[in-house]
Amino acid sequence: MGRVYNFSAGPAVLPEEVLKQAAAEMLDYDGCGMSVMEMSHRSKPFARIIETAEADLRELMGVPENYHVLFLQGGATQQFAAIPMNLMQNKKADYILSGSWSKKAFKEAKLYGEARCVASSEDGNFSYVPDVDGLEFTPDADYVYICQNETIYGTRYPKLPNTGNIPLVSDVSSMFLSEPVNVADYGLIYGGVQKNVGPAGVVIVIVRDDLVREDVLPFTPTIMRYKTQADAKSLSNTPPAYGIYICGLVFKWLKEMGGLEAMKARNVEKAGILYDFLDQSKLFTATARKEDRSLMNVPFITGDTDLDAKFVAEAKGAGIESIKGHRSVGGMRASIYNAMPKAGVEALVQFMDKFERENA
Amino acid sequence: MGRVYNFSAGPAVLPEEVLKQAAAEMLDYDGCGMSVMEMSHRSKPFARIIETAEADLRELMGVPENYHVLFLQGGATQQFAAIPMNLMQNKKADYILSGSWSKKAFKEAKLYGEARCVASSEDGNFSYVPDVDGLEFTPDADYVYICQNETIYGTRYPKLPNTGNIPLVSDVSSMFLSEPVNVADYGLIYGGVQKNVGPAGVVIVIVRDDLVREDVLPFTPTIMRYKTQADAKSLSNTPPAYGIYICGLVFKWLKEMGGLEAMKARNVEKAGILYDFLDQSKLFTATARKEDRSLMNVPFITGDTDLDAKFVAEAKGAGIESIKGHRSVGGMRASIYNAMPKAGVEALVQFMDKFERENA
Repeated sequence: MGRVYNFSAGPAVLPEEVLKQAAAEMLDYDGCGMSVMEMSHRSKPFARIIETAEADLRELMGVPENYHVLFLQGGATQQFAAIPMNLMQNKKADYILSGSWSKKAFKEAKLYGEARCVASSEDGNFSYVPDVDGLEFTPDADYVYICQNETIYGTRYPKLPNTGNIPLVSDVSSMFLSEPVNVADYGLIYGGVQKNVGPAGVVIVIVRDDLVREDVLPFTPTIMRYKTQADAKSLSNTPPAYGIYICGLVFKWLKEMGGLEAMKARNVEKAGILYDFLDQSKLFTATARKEDRSLMNVPFITGDTDLDAKFVAEAKGAGIESIKGHRSVGGMRASIYNAMPKAGVEALVQFMDKFERENA
Repeated sequence: MGRVYNFSAGPAVLPEEVLKQAAAEMLDYDGCGMSVMEMSHRSKPFARIIETAEADLRELMGVPENYHVLFLQGGATQQFAAIPMNLMQNKKADYILSGSWSKKAFKEAKLYGEARCVASSEDGNFSYVPDVDGLEFTPDADYVYICQNETIYGTRYPKLPNTGNIPLVSDVSSMFLSEPVNVADYGLIYGGVQKNVGPAGVVIVIVRDDLVREDVLPFTPTIMRYKTQADAKSLSNTPPAYGIYICGLVFKWLKEMGGLEAMKARNVEKAGILYDFLDQSKLFTATARKEDRSLMNVPFITGDTDLDAKFVAEAKGAGIESIKGHRSVGGMRASIYNAMPKAGVEALVQFMDKFERENA
């Protein structure tokens, strides 16, 4: 069987060029006579891999010098705990809830201090992003937390909250490297890589110098302290080396594609094809509010669960995989990350059009 | 360049058959039209991968039904914290120190309760395993902790301590699946996989039912709670999916090799070749006490640091890689894990013999 169009929300499609290179190098990386999987993380070849990955990521995102880049384990979910453990010196943090992931992060933060919900769109089943204008934050909050792109509900912050001197912490897992961001707007920006950047098992944390502190909560595991990992350049313990290598290959691919401005243009075009079709369709409806629509995750429904199920089943036959929606929204969800080619979105729209005509 | 003989202590050599299969399946796993890296962890193909891996591991180790098998992130180092967080209901634990790794685990445990050192071989630079006969344990200790094979110092417990009703917790990272163990002897047995089982980024925890508890220390991150992961079959959050897949391939390879009894025979033979040479050598000395020698990690020295450096440099030219010893012991260290072929050990001994004659 050939390659399918894989619309999974994560782990998700990776660039075919990257997979081909990984396969070719599996038994012998760069003349070392061994796989990257077999290499000591203290060896020179691996040092080059992780240092090059960091340098390329810094270049792609324009990471300022006063930010650390950490390659860690445990995914975004572990950061839900690591963030308050490291940053809650005043034991106060403000959370804006725009979906399942910020809600989970909020719940976890309550284990460590006074986490306050300052805005939520749960009343509308998270189909929109709360208005961030005029929000009042706790004056001595340690940070304000958002999940900038909601994988499940398919929303994306159209603008960031103005948090003044309070550090903004953002989970960008499902929009990571899909468009330029201004890192200086954040105190900490992080994401699990398994959506847009690499295989599951690596989370990248980009954190400003002053938030890498000694005075973390006392029971914080040593390897979860940003200070430990920043001092050791992410090598305090054995890192998820093969995942970091794949991320590095994806960074090279992104640079060849023209960087994040070029990716954004490509992603706007791809998402446009799908949203334009949805907006004129009489059968399908996009569930997220128009002005908050994600470029990466596009949930849509027919309004008829049987018809939704039929769509998912028939799509499979057309080489369209993992298009079933999350149970919180139902229907379908097309995740169209960086590595999803335009041809994949076109194939999806073509199939939707055919399905609509057949089921009108 | 061809494949080298890779004596790295970890990440370390993997079976060539496994790497070949991984390379062949990189773009299309089992007719799915996608890589295992790209697969939703909630998909049927991935469910088969993780369920088969668990079943094969249970078969290989003879894991009793009242034990959970968890595939987690963060390596053994994260378990240094997770173990006390999950098990220290009485806030008391006894540690036997036989090297760097048990010492690190001991230090971490002190963040969470009263960790007591009941025996140590630090006086002899950890060249031996403390005598476990007649040790007295804290009666209400939550557990007794050991690191059963010391990667750095090359020792292995010749027998386990008798801890009575106190659960024994053992880090078996560097001897994982190298020989049979009786899982019922332990309350919890665990290891990072990056030495004998797979790529860095997966740690396997095998834990008895009664130690999977609700009443963990209150600040334990949700995903570090064994209960969370046991209830979710290791899928509470996105697991390190590709690493688990590689572990699964290694389990199949081990079964084809004849299981753990056959691996032990093979490992005894391989280690014997190296130790026999060392015992008759006038130049090289094995640093670990004879009765405590590891089958996996063999440190040895010439007693002359310049000569050690010369050995390491010239070995490289003979296709012998990552043979430099850890700075705590100096000299050389040959890690001869499951996937190191007998021919690799023979090539090493041949080179040592030649080097000895040239530098007598």
